[in-house]
Amino acid sequence: MNFEYSDKVNKLRKQVTEFMEEVVYPNEKVYEQQVREAESRWTVPAVMEEMKAKAKSAGLWNLFLPESDYGAGLTNLEYAPLAEIMGRSHIGPEVFNCSAPDTGNMEVLVRYGTKEQQEKWLVPLLNGEIRSCFSMTEPDVASSDATNIQASIVREGDEYVINARKWWSSGAGDPRCKISIFMGKTDPNAARHEQQSMILVPLDTPGVKIERMLPVFGYDHAPHGHGEITFTDVRVPVSNILWEEGKGFAIAQGRLGPGRIHHCMRSIGVAERALELMVKRVKNRVAFGKPLADQGVIRQWIAESRIEIEQARLLTLKAAFMMDTVGNKVAKKEIAMIKVVAPNVALRVLDRAIQAFGAAGVSDDFPLAAMWANARTLRLADGPDEVHKNAIAKQELADQ
Amino acid sequence: MNFEYSDKVNKLRKQVTEFMEEVVYPNEKVYEQQVREAESRWTVPAVMEEMKAKAKSAGLWNLFLPESDYGAGLTNLEYAPLAEIMGRSHIGPEVFNCSAPDTGNMEVLVRYGTKEQQEKWLVPLLNGEIRSCFSMTEPDVASSDATNIQASIVREGDEYVINARKWWSSGAGDPRCKISIFMGKTDPNAARHEQQSMILVPLDTPGVKIERMLPVFGYDHAPHGHGEITFTDVRVPVSNILWEEGKGFAIAQGRLGPGRIHHCMRSIGVAERALELMVKRVKNRVAFGKPLADQGVIRQWIAESRIEIEQARLLTLKAAFMMDTVGNKVAKKEIAMIKVVAPNVALRVLDRAIQAFGAAGVSDDFPLAAMWANARTLRLADGPDEVHKNAIAKQELADQ
Amino acid sequence: MNFEYSDKVNKLRKQVTEFMEEVVYPNEKVYEQQVREAESRWTVPAVMEEMKAKAKSAGLWNLFLPESDYGAGLTNLEYAPLAEIMGRSHIGPEVFNCSAPDTGNMEVLVRYGTKEQQEKWLVPLLNGEIRSCFSMTEPDVASSDATNIQASIVREGDEYVINARKWWSSGAGDPRCKISIFMGKTDPNAARHEQQSMILVPLDTPGVKIERMLPVFGYDHAPHGHGEITFTDVRVPVSNILWEEGKGFAIAQGRLGPGRIHHCMRSIGVAERALELMVKRVKNRVAFGKPLADQGVIRQWIAESRIEIEQARLLTLKAAFMMDTVGNKVAKKEIAMIKVVAPNVALRVLDRAIQAFGAAGVSDDFPLAAMWANARTLRLADGPDEVHKNAIAKQELADQ
Amino acid sequence: MNFEYSDKVNKLRKQVTEFMEEVVYPNEKVYEQQVREAESRWTVPAVMEEMKAKAKSAGLWNLFLPESDYGAGLTNLEYAPLAEIMGRSHIGPEVFNCSAPDTGNMEVLVRYGTKEQQEKWLVPLLNGEIRSCFSMTEPDVASSDATNIQASIVREGDEYVINARKWWSSGAGDPRCKISIFMGKTDPNAARHEQQSMILVPLDTPGVKIERMLPVFGYDHAPHGHGEITFTDVRVPVSNILWEEGKGFAIAQGRLGPGRIHHCMRSIGVAERALELMVKRVKNRVAFGKPLADQGVIRQWIAESRIEIEQARLLTLKAAFMMDTVGNKVAKKEIAMIKVVAPNVALRVLDRAIQAFGAAGVSDDFPLAAMWANARTLRLADGPDEVHKNAIAKQELADQ
Repeated sequence: MNFEYSDKVNKLRKQVTEFMEEVVYPNEKVYEQQVREAESRWTVPAVMEEMKAKAKSAGLWNLFLPESDYGAGLTNLEYAPLAEIMGRSHIGPEVFNCSAPDTGNMEVLVRYGTKEQQEKWLVPLLNGEIRSCFSMTEPDVASSDATNIQASIVREGDEYVINARKWWSSGAGDPRCKISIFMGKTDPNAARHEQQSMILVPLDTPGVKIERMLPVFGYDHAPHGHGEITFTDVRVPVSNILWEEGKGFAIAQGRLGPGRIHHCMRSIGVAERALELMVKRVKNRVAFGKPLADQGVIRQWIAESRIEIEQARLLTLKAAFMMDTVGNKVAKKEIAMIKVVAPNVALRVLDRAIQAFGAAGVSDDFPLAAMWANARTLRLADGPDEVHKNAIAKQELADQ
Repeated sequence: MNFEYSDKVNKLRKQVTEFMEEVVYPNEKVYEQQVREAESRWTVPAVMEEMKAKAKSAGLWNLFLPESDYGAGLTNLEYAPLAEIMGRSHIGPEVFNCSAPDTGNMEVLVRYGTKEQQEKWLVPLLNGEIRSCFSMTEPDVASSDATNIQASIVREGDEYVINARKWWSSGAGDPRCKISIFMGKTDPNAARHEQQSMILVPLDTPGVKIERMLPVFGYDHAPHGHGEITFTDVRVPVSNILWEEGKGFAIAQGRLGPGRIHHCMRSIGVAERALELMVKRVKNRVAFGKPLADQGVIRQWIAESRIEIEQARLLTLKAAFMMDTVGNKVAKKEIAMIKVVAPNVALRVLDRAIQAFGAAGVSDDFPLAAMWANARTLRLADGPDEVHKNAIAKQELADQ
Repeated sequence: MNFEYSDKVNKLRKQVTEFMEEVVYPNEKVYEQQVREAESRWTVPAVMEEMKAKAKSAGLWNLFLPESDYGAGLTNLEYAPLAEIMGRSHIGPEVFNCSAPDTGNMEVLVRYGTKEQQEKWLVPLLNGEIRSCFSMTEPDVASSDATNIQASIVREGDEYVINARKWWSSGAGDPRCKISIFMGKTDPNAARHEQQSMILVPLDTPGVKIERMLPVFGYDHAPHGHGEITFTDVRVPVSNILWEEGKGFAIAQGRLGPGRIHHCMRSIGVAERALELMVKRVKNRVAFGKPLADQGVIRQWIAESRIEIEQARLLTLKAAFMMDTVGNKVAKKEIAMIKVVAPNVALRVLDRAIQAFGAAGVSDDFPLAAMWANARTLRLADGPDEVHKNAIAKQELADQ
Repeated sequence: MNFEYSDKVNKLRKQVTEFMEEVVYPNEKVYEQQVREAESRWTVPAVMEEMKAKAKSAGLWNLFLPESDYGAGLTNLEYAPLAEIMGRSHIGPEVFNCSAPDTGNMEVLVRYGTKEQQEKWLVPLLNGEIRSCFSMTEPDVASSDATNIQASIVREGDEYVINARKWWSSGAGDPRCKISIFMGKTDPNAARHEQQSMILVPLDTPGVKIERMLPVFGYDHAPHGHGEITFTDVRVPVSNILWEEGKGFAIAQGRLGPGRIHHCMRSIGVAERALELMVKRVKNRVAFGKPLADQGVIRQWIAESRIEIEQARLLTLKAAFMMDTVGNKVAKKEIAMIKVVAPNVALRVLDRAIQAFGAAGVSDDFPLAAMWANARTLRLADGPDEVHKNAIAKQELADQ
C-alpha cells in the first residue's frame, strides 16, 4: 500500500497544472465572452481551437486513452489525477480532448468498433476534428431503469430503421458534433438484458432532428448543449451496429466504468477549486469586525470541505486502481460508490463556497453557480444516486 | 390557541386559489414564451398586464397592505396564507400587486413617506403603474454586515449628492421601474446605527447608470432582473430623504419584518407546489417494476417534505401573529427563525423533487429548477442564514 | 388562528412550573441516590411518594385525563404544554400521576373498560396506588408490523389461556406494577386487523414470569424498568377482555394517539431543558481565550436548537388541537408527523448539548446522557420513524 | 500508488481474524458474565488473562509497538488494519496487549523514558502484567484547550509535589492499573506551550485518591472504568519526570498521533461490525410482507454505511502512511481529519444498525448500544471535533 503518485504521474500533473495556469484559466472569461458575442450561441469559440492546438503540441492530448492500437495510454489510476486537474475548469477537459461524452464514446469505438468504424469516427474524434453525443435517455420513461427504454431499431435488409425520441444527448449543440452512439431495442422479446443494442447514427442522416436544446438551471451550456432529438424512420447501414445485436447493456457496462470515474475525478477538481476560491475570498472579506476567515462557522466549512474532498479522492483513486488491477466488473461496487460520493461532495463544497461568497456566489462573476448546476446533473446522469445505492446494498447483502 | 384560519381568511384563500387556477397557472408558459420571443428580454409581457387587470377587478389587489390611509388592509396573519398561495407561481405575486421589492417599498412609503412622496411614488405603485427597486447591497464589501456599506450621501444646499456602486437591485431591469429606495451614509461619524439614511432616487436622474443585469444560476429573471447600478454625483432634492437623516437602520428594521415574512410564505408556497408536483410525478413513473410512489426512499422524501413544510408554515404564521400582536421588534427572534427556515425547507423539498423527476427536474419543462435557483438566493438576501442564526443565539443567551 | 395559550392554561403552566422548581428538580439527585442506595434497585424511592402526595394535594394530579366520569379533564391542547413542563425531568411525569405507560392504560380503561374493570384497576391507578405495563412487542418478530405478533389468547370455557414471550413491557420492574394490558391473537384466521385482542393480565397470575429487565444504553431505568416477560398457560377470566375479541387494533389506534402526543410534548420539554443547560454552560466555560458562548459554532447550535424546538412544539400543539376538534382518526397524519419529529429534535439538541459540555456531557453529572438514551428509544417505541413516514407518504399520495 | 495490503500485512490480518473468531468473539458474553457475577465490578475477569496468554503464545502481542529496543515493530500502516480487526470487539484490543491508554503510554515510555523508568514501568506493561492510565483532563476547566489545565507540579528538593483534580483517567478502575502519566504545570510563567510537564505517578503514592468512577451513558465500563482522581500533596522523586520539565506539550503531540490513529482504526472496526450485524439482521426479519433487506430505506442505509466506512478507512490508512513516511508533524492535518471522521462514521453506522434492529438495538443483547456509547466519547476525547476542524481550517488558510 502506497499513497504517493508515481514520478510519471507527478510529472504529468505538473505539466497539466502549468498548462491550466498558463493557458486555460486565463481564457475562461475569453471563452465565455466569445460564446456571448457570437451570432449564434451554437458556435465554437475560436479560443477553444487555439487552446487545443497548444495542448496537442505539448503532448497533453488524449491522455484518457487506455493502451490500444491507437497509442500506449495511461492506466485509470494514472489518468485520474490528471482528469481532476482538467476538471477544475469547465473548459478544461475539451482543451485536452478529454471531455465527455467523447471520451466514453472513443473508448467504445476502441473496444467494440470495427476497423471501418474506427477509421471513420474514432480517428477524427481522436484528432479533435469532430465531436459526438450519446443518445440513451428518453423523456417518456424513467430511464434510470434502462430496461424501460423504448427506442426501436428494426432491421430491414441491409439497414436498420430507427425510431425514437431521446433527450439529454449532451454535446449535440456543437456544430462539430457529427455522430451519435444510439441505444435502443433490436429485440423486445429477448432476455431482459439482451434486448438493447448500440448503433452509430450520423447526425446528418435524414430523419434525425434536434428538436430543442435543454437548459440546466437556466444555463444552455452553449455551444455544447443538451439535445432533445427525434429519430423518425432513420436508416443506417447494418454495418453501423456496435459489436453485435443485443450487446447494448454489455457495452454500456464497459463504457460507463471509465466514464464515471472521469466524471468523479473532474467533480473532485471542481470541489478543490471551489474550496480554493472560498479560502481566498474569506481571507479578504471583513464582516462584524473580523475577516470571514476568523469566524468559527466558516472554519468548520473549510475543514468539512477538506475532509470530504480527501476522502472522495481516495475512494476514486482506489476504484481506478481496482479497475486497472481486477477489472471493471469486480470494481463495480467501488465505481457505484464514487458515482454517488463525488458529485455530492462537490455540491456540498460548492454550496458552502456560494454561501461564503454571498450574492456574488450565485452570479457568474465566479464559476461557483455554474459548477453547482453542472454537478447537480451528475446526481442524475448515468443513473440517480438511489439506483447506485441500491446496487451497492444488493452486493453487500450478497457478500455476507 | 387555535390553528384554524378565520372564515374571512378561508374565503380569501378560496378566491386567490381559484384565481391562480383559472388565470395564473395557465399563463405561466404564455408569460415565459412572451419573454422569450420579445425583441428585448427587458420588456413586460402583455399577459402580465392582462392578468393584473383581472386581479384588480376581482378585488384581489394590494392585499399585503396593512391598515393605513390607503385602505383597510389585512393583518400579517391574514395575509400570510394568501402570500403562500400567490408564491406557488413565480409570476403569481406580481399579478396581485404583491411582489417584492415593491411591497416592502410601499410599506416604507406608507409608514415614513411624506404626503408629497406618497402622491408621487406610492400611488402609482399601489396602482401597479410603476415598479421600484431597493439599492442597499454593494459589491465591494460584505454587505451581510450593513455597517460596511460605503455609499455616500452628502448634503449640498437643497440637494443630496449621491455616489455609490450598488448591486442586486432587484427589479431594476423592468422598464416600468422608476424609483429606487437607496441606502447610504449621510454621516460616517455618527453612532454606528445612525450613519445611514434612506433616500428616494428616481432612476432617470442623471448619473444613475445600470451597468449590467446579474444572472442567478443562469437565469436572468427578465424582465425583472437584478441590476448592478452606479450612482455618480447623482443629485436629488433634500425632500427625497425618507423620515430623516440617520434613520436608515430604523427604516430597514421596519421594512424587513414584513418583507421577510412575505418571502417566507412564498417559499412555503413554492415548497408546497414542489411536493405536489413530486407526488403527481411519482404516481405515474415506473422503474424496476413498480411506480416510484411505491419505493421506500421516495416515500421517505414525501413524508419528510410534508413534515418540514407543516412546521415551517406554523412557525411563519406564529411570527406573523406576533408581529400583529406584540410588534415587529418583539417578534424579531421569530422573524429571524423563519428567515432561516423557510428558504431551506423549500430548497430541500425542491431538491428531492428534482431528484424524483430525474433529468427533467433540472430543465425548464417543470418549474423546479427555476424555483430552486430563486430559493437559493433567499439564503443570502436580507442577510445570510449564519447572521440570522447568530442573532437568534445572542437573544437566547441574553434571555436566560 | 391564535398562538397564545389560554388564561386557564397559562395559570396551570405557572403552577406546574413552580411545582417543578420547588419540588421536582431539587429532588432529582435525591431520587437517584435513593435508587442507588436501596438494597434492591427495584424499590420505589420514598421521595417519589412524598412528591406525589404534594402534587395531589396541590390539585396537580391526573391532568392528562380527558373529560369522563372520572373527572372533567383537560383537552389535549390544554394538557400538552403541561406535559412538556413535566417532561423536563425524568421523574416529573410520575409525580403528577401522568407518566407512561399508565396514562395510556388509564385512557384505555376509561374508554373501553367495564365498570368492574374500572373499579378494580382504573381507580387505584388514578389514585397512584398501583402502576401498570403494556405488553405488546415481542422479541421473536419485527413488531413494527403489529400483524407479526404471535402471542396466543385461546378461550377455554370461562377463561382465556395466554401464551407468549413479550419484551419492553416498560414499568414492569416497579414493585407497584400490578396489571398488564396484554395484546395477542384470539383469532389467527380473522381479517388482518381483527385477529388481535387486548386483555387484562394481573402480574401475579400463575404463569407470568419476568425473565429479566432490559437495559437501555447501559441504564436499567430502575425501578421502572423494561421487562421481558413470559406468559405460560396463563389463565384469566373472560371478563378480563377489553371491549371485545378482535378489537386489539381498534383500541391500539385509540390508545396510541394521546400516548404519542404526551411522549412528544415530554420530548420537547427534554429538548428545552437541554438547550437551557447548554446556554448556561457555554456562558461559563472559557476556551481559547473566550467563553464558548462567543464562539460561532456554538451559536449556530443554539440557534438551530431553538428553531427546531419551536417548530416541533407548534406541530405538536396543532396535532393536539386537531385531536380535540376533528378526532384522532382525522388527525392521524399529524400524530404520525410529531411522532417522527419530536424525538429526533430532542436527540439533536441533546447531542449538541453533550458536545458543548465535553466529557461531562456523557456522564451522569448532568441529565443529558440519560435523556439522550431515553429519547433514542422513542424513535423505535410505538413504531420506528420509517413506518410512520411511510404512513404519512401513503396519505399524501392518496390525498392528491 | 497502490491500494493493496502487503503480503506481510495480509498474513497478519488473517491470523488476527482467526484469533478473533476462535478466541475473542466466543468469549464476549463470558467476559460480560464474569464481570456481572464478580463480587466487585472492579475485578479482572479470569477469561481475559486466559485469552491474553493465548495471544502471547501465538505471537500476536504488542503489535502496536514501533521499531525500538523493545522489538522490531510494525509501521503505522501495517498496524492499522490489525487495530481495525481487534477493535471489532470491545474486549479485543486488550487481548493482544494493544489497548488504550496503555499503547499510548508505552510509546511515551519507549520514546522519552529513562532506562530506569522503562525497566520499572515499560517492561511490565509490555508483558501485560500491569496497566496504566493517563491523567490530563480536569473537571474544572474546558480541557479542550489544554492551556487551561491547572494541575500544579512544584519542585521541592528531590521531589515534585503534585496537586490536582483530574477526571476521565480511563483504566483507573482496573486493579492492575499501577501507574499514571500525569500532566500538569511546572512553570505557569513559561511560554504558553512550555508550562506543562508530564510525570510518572504510581497510583499507590500517598495523596492519590480515586474519588469515583464516571459512567458513560449508563455504562461503567468495569473493570476498566473512568476515574475521577484527586492528587493532594502527592510527592514523587524528580527522576519521575518524563523527558524534562516543560515538555508536556511536546510529548502530548508525539503521543497523540499514534493514539488517535489506533482509536480511528478501532472505530472503523466497530463500524464494520455494526454493518455486518445489520446486514445479517435485515435478511432475517420480515415486516409488511417482505424482509427488511428488500426495503428501500434499509438498502440506502447499507449503501451509505459502506460508502462512509470505505472512505474513512482509506483516509486513516493514508494518515498512517504519512506518519510513517513524512512524520507525525507533517501528517497532523491528516491525523486531525481522521480524528473527526472515524468516530462520526462509526456513530452513523451504529445508529442505522440500531434503528434496523428495533428495540433490540438499544439493549445489551447486541453490542450496538454499548459500541455507540463508546464511540460517542471519541468525539470528545483528545479534543472535540470542533477543535480539530478549527485546526484543519487554520492549516488550509495558511497553505493557500
